[in-house]
This record gives sequence, structure tokens and C-alpha cells, in this order.
Amino acid sequence: MTSEAYLSRGVSPTKDDVKAAISQQDPGLFPGSFCKIIPDPAGDPEWCAAFHADGAGTKSALAYLMYRETGDCTWFEGIAQDSLVMNSDDLLAIGATGPFLLSNTIGRNAHRIPGAVLASIISGYDKAILRLAEYGVKILMTGGETADVGDLVRTVICDSTMMARLPRNEVINTGEIISGLDIIGLSSTGRAVYEEQENSGLSSNGLTAARHLLLHHVYAEKYPESYSETISDDKVYTGSYLLEDKLPGSNLSIGEALLSPTRSYLPPVNEMLKTHRENILGIIHCTGGGQVKCIDFAQGIRYVKNNLFPMPALFKAILDTGQISEKEMYQVFNMGHRMEIYCNPTISADLMAIASKYHVEAQIIGRTEACAGDYNEVVIGSFSWRKNLK
Amino acid sequence: MTSEAYLSRGVSPTKDDVKAAISQQDPGLFPGSFCKIIPDPAGDPEWCAAFHADGAGTKSALAYLMYRETGDCTWFEGIAQDSLVMNSDDLLAIGATGPFLLSNTIGRNAHRIPGAVLASIISGYDKAILRLAEYGVKILMTGGETADVGDLVRTVICDSTMMARLPRNEVINTGEIISGLDIIGLSSTGRAVYEEQENSGLSSNGLTAARHLLLHHVYAEKYPESYSETISDDKVYTGSYLLEDKLPGSNLSIGEALLSPTRSYLPPVNEMLKTHRENILGIIHCTGGGQVKCIDFAQGIRYVKNNLFPMPALFKAILDTGQISEKEMYQVFNMGHRMEIYCNPTISADLMAIASKYHVEAQIIGRTEACAGDYNEVVIGSFSWRKNLK
Repeated sequence: MTSEAYLSRGVSPTKDDVKAAISQQDPGLFPGSFCKIIPDPAGDPEWCAAFHADGAGTKSALAYLMYRETGDCTWFEGIAQDSLVMNSDDLLAIGATGPFLLSNTIGRNAHRIPGAVLASIISGYDKAILRLAEYGVKILMTGGETADVGDLVRTVICDSTMMARLPRNEVINTGEIISGLDIIGLSSTGRAVYEEQENSGLSSNGLTAARHLLLHHVYAEKYPESYSETISDDKVYTGSYLLEDKLPGSNLSIGEALLSPTRSYLPPVNEMLKTHRENILGIIHCTGGGQVKCIDFAQGIRYVKNNLFPMPALFKAILDTGQISEKEMYQVFNMGHRMEIYCNPTISADLMAIASKYHVEAQIIGRTEACAGDYNEVVIGSFSWRKNLK
Repeated sequence: MTSEAYLSRGVSPTKDDVKAAISQQDPGLFPGSFCKIIPDPAGDPEWCAAFHADGAGTKSALAYLMYRETGDCTWFEGIAQDSLVMNSDDLLAIGATGPFLLSNTIGRNAHRIPGAVLASIISGYDKAILRLAEYGVKILMTGGETADVGDLVRTVICDSTMMARLPRNEVINTGEIISGLDIIGLSSTGRAVYEEQENSGLSSNGLTAARHLLLHHVYAEKYPESYSETISDDKVYTGSYLLEDKLPGSNLSIGEALLSPTRSYLPPVNEMLKTHRENILGIIHCTGGGQVKCIDFAQGIRYVKNNLFPMPALFKAILDTGQISEKEMYQVFNMGHRMEIYCNPTISADLMAIASKYHVEAQIIGRTEACAGDYNEVVIGSFSWRKNLK
């Protein structure tokens, strides 16, 4: 799937035009950090804060399919967790461990999305917050908005905004990633102690591609409201799977795997930061951009990722469609770990031990090296990407 | 237009199912207040804070029409102001005067919305923030998210989330509105000193109705992507106007009037709060629910609104379509004033004098009375609404 083919599904793969549109915006207190960091709203000069906005993206279109096929609204509960974790774990990447303040914005077409679906989404937020609270993560729901915007939204969209404060001397700044670090990858699959079921590892990125590549065209005719009418018919649901089909190499169905709620890494990483913050020099949340997201951070660094986790079953199924290359998959999906801790090698074993307490697999997936020139580079096996720094 | 007819356009007029879905949520520190108020994130026991989420709603579908008809992206600039003010002025209704922290979430179909439109929206935020800054209103853009969600969003949706802190003893609590108060209405039309052009007064509520009732069916064929395919064809763009037609009784075209950026009332109301806070007992921002929104606040109050502003030209044009009753219009649109200050009558003249300094018309549009029973009531001329309090 070329970039052009990706745009054929209404998604800009590199978001270059988005980056250009916001390029003049103030970079905040810690330029190069994973999220924009602002002065503390309460005015404490030793503290700072960050807001973050993100959502479940087109994963809600998949929840809609499952809801329509099964009549069960509770498939939407996970969408709330997706929307929440896409924010909380980005904030974690600047070293924020909470309390987090959360607000949501839900847009729906009231013809298709009844109040019971909204209630499931709200309940999903509540459950995710309660589950994380058991592991010491404090999240306060501050309110939100549900808008009837049927002329804009075909089914339902679920976005969240979160805010956290933290002491300035505890900020983790991806801009300061240096050579000679270990990269500890935290697996996106398996079942963490704070999860109710096995996680497919997909999270909330690349859902437009995953849905259309895996699902059978039968859904195009049944649910035309679940995709953009700007996608040509030969790009819509081009796969071979029904939602209830078994995902090869997994106990999950395709529908369950695609809807697997995004794992939060807050419980283990909070403990890592509590005990080893001074030796953690960067945290990358591998969301949009996947395993190549790191290329946007730091200066003159080669990210050598030569020991990734085995490719999870769901990503294998997507690759097996033959409609997207492995190289491009690394730019879209997390491919096995969605959180990376960049640390002094002296603490790598300790970090992995902490992760294992939470039943989150961890391993040294690679290391950082210095580049000769004025560029960043990512190397994964035989694939590589280069970004010139102006 | 009955409620059923309104839902036929994909909008739930009373949002009863939304209210039911969120009914179990914690009401915050000041139950009955206009926005949910939370403890200060920085932990100061004498301070509190509130988050607020809202957006431009389906007004962006109108900006899309203007953009497509004229090729001019800058029609989207006002959408940013709409999205911002729908939040800032709700926070103003709890007495928050800033600084405000702002984050946005833009969802688009990349096939239809190029980067130049995103740049216009971003520029619109910057311009609105700068203009309000000239009048002492501090708003900090903290960042945001632009998501390519073409399978969900047909054109573009523009939402914002804002946060503000304020001392607890400065909170204005609509739950404490009592009888015997004057209601000062602040006009939604005319041109405030901080506005670049005449304001039609529409703001960002009732846009689905306004667009479909006023605009000519020719836009249905030209731009089917600008409305929900769940609306039956006889409810789509049922009006007689083209965008460039003159709005009767106004210098604005229909397109300009419909896209008139939502006025913020922060400059005059900040000054009112600075000088008269102790005599201001409530502030109602007449957004969703229009002139009847107040019925949801306080206990055992009759809101007698017997001196409204003359009906602005745009609302007159909507009424003249004959497709919506005047009574229902009061439940959907602000009908002439979008901000209400509930005050001791001793300061009414002072408040009106402050408003006039900003070229915002103000008048005593009504008063509060005690109800005999356990209900709230709104009376506007010969129309009345009653809400039983369980």
C-alpha cells in the first residue's frame, strides 16, 4: 500500500499537511518533548503542565459494526478506554504520572446511535478509570459534551482531552535522547494484571487500514455508513474475514482482536519512574507513525531496533493480506510494543523486572547510536528510514 | 417543527437520552452550577477549576459550502472562534474570567479537507485569541489534535476543550438564582468594539435547523457530503435562499449571516464581575436550549422574560419559512441575546452602562419570581414552559 493508496482511504499517512498547518505554533517550555509543555496554570514556577487531545479514531466505526451485528451496545465500552489511553499514555511520555484530569467530546448521528450506546461509552470511561485506580493511577472525569452532529458524523466519534501537572525537574524530554541508551519495549499483547482479557496489541492506530484490509466486503453492502463514501469501492473492506472468524494464531475472533481496548502502560511505567527516573532519558509512545515515530525526536540519533517482539497475530494477518508491505506496517502499527523506555543500560534489567510484575512483557528491543550527519535514522532489520533535520 | 421532525434531521432536540446517559456522573463541588466545578488541580483549597468541552457543531458544514462555492478557505476561520467561544463563555457563566487554557480536536476527511483549511482553522484560533487579548482576556493555546477520520467525519468537525481556575469565593452558581432578580440580556447582534464586522447573532446553536430551513435544495444535489444521508430528502435544504442572497432586513448575505462568528461576552462581563460580582447571582449562557435553557437551573423559579430584544433578522427569516413555530424557536435559538446576567436590581443600570462601553446592547429582558410549587417555569410573552423538579 503506497502512501497514495493510503490516502485513497481518506487518511493522510504522514500528516505532512497537518504538520505544516501547525508549524508556527509555540513549542512550549521544553521544545522537543513528546507533548507540548506549558507553565503551571496555578503559577508555581517549579511546576509545569500539559494538555493532550486525542480519540479512538475510526475504531468506533468497528464498534458500530459489532453493535449492529450483535445488538450489544457494550462493544462501545472499550472505545472509551481507547480514547482515554491515547491521551494518558502520551502524557506519560513526558513523565506525567497523574493525577490526570479528563474531559470527553462525543459526536453522534442520533438516528444511528441511541442513548444506550452513549451510556456504554460513559460506562467504559468509568470502568477504565476505576481499574487504573486500583493500581494507583488517579484520573478525574471533569465532564464532557455529547453533540448531535449527524450532518458531520456518520455514526459516532469519541475524543478525549486530558491534562496533568508535574514538577519541571521530573519532565522526561524526548528531545534529550542521546546515544548509548537501551530501548526497552513494553509489549502490546498478552494480558496485563490490570486487564480483563487478552490484548491483541492493536491499540487505536491504523484502524482505517486494519478494518478495510481484514474485513470482508459483505460489510460494505450491509453498513455503508461505516466508511467514507470517498473511498473507491475496491478499497472498501477488501479482506476475507467476518467479525466472528477466528484470528489465526490467537484465541480471539477478528472482531474481538480489532476491538481489543488500548492497553495503558501507566501502572508499570509509573513504578519505573518512581524508582529510576534519573536514568530514564526518554519515553516514546509508538502511536501514529508506529515504530518510526521516534524519528521525529532528538537530534542526530540512529534508533537501531534489532530485537523486536515476534509479530503479533493480528499484524501477521494484516501483512498476510498482501495489500500492505511490511515496511509500511512499521510506519502505521506498533507491531508488538507500543511503549519504549530509553534508559541507561544499567537499569534495563530492573525495568524489565518491574514490567514483569504487571505481566507486561518487556525486552531490550534496541539501542540508540550517534549519527554521523545532521539527521535521525530508524533501522529495523533490513528496513531503514531517514529524516533530515533541516 | 415537532421534536419528531427535528430528530428527522439527526438531532435530539431535548437531549433527554444524553442527560440520562450521564445522570450518574458526579455533579462536582457546586451542584447546580452552569459547568461542573472540580477541586483545584494544584490542590489549593481556596481555589477550584472547571473543564469545558464543546465545538462549532454543524456550522462547519456551512463553512464547507462557502469554501466550495467561493474557493476561499478563510471561511473556516470563524469556525475556530465558534468552537472557542462556546467553551469560554460557558466557563464565564461560572464566573471564570481567565486565564483560559485551550486545546482543540479537529477531525476531517482528508479527501475533502486539505491542509489549507486546517491552516485557516488554526489561524482563526490565533486571531480570536489575539483579539480578546486586546481586551484583557488571556487564552493560552496548549496544543491539539488533527485526526484523519474520513470513515466517521464527512467533511470536518472542530471541537475545543478549555480549562480555567478561579477562587471558590468568586464562583457564580446558577443553582443559587433566587426570586426578585433582574435579568440583563446582552444582545447577540450588532457590532461590539472587539468585533470586525456586524454579528447576525446566530452563534453556534441550531445550525442544523437554520441551514436546512433557509438554504435552497440546490445545495443538496451539489454537496450531498454536507448533510446526513439519514435525513429524508424532503427535510434537506428546504429553504429558498442561496448563500449569496441578501438576508432581508440586514446588510449581510445569508451565507455571511449563517457563518457570523459567535460573539464572546468576555470583555464586558469580565468588567461587570470585576466591579459588581457580589450582586451578580447567576449567569446563563443561552446555548443549547436557547431562551429556555435557564429552566434547568435553580429551584422553584419562574423566569419571566417579557422584554426581549426585537427578533434579529436571521431568526425572523427562519421563522418566516413557516417550518418551525415561534415557540420552538425559543428552545433552539438565542433569539436576540445569548448571555443573561441575573443581578440585584440595584446594579442593573451599572451593568448596562458597562455593556454599552463595548457597544454590546443590553437591557432588562425580564426578572425572576418565586413559583408556588416544586417546579421551574419560563414565560416568554404568551409562551410558557414548565419543568417539574422530581
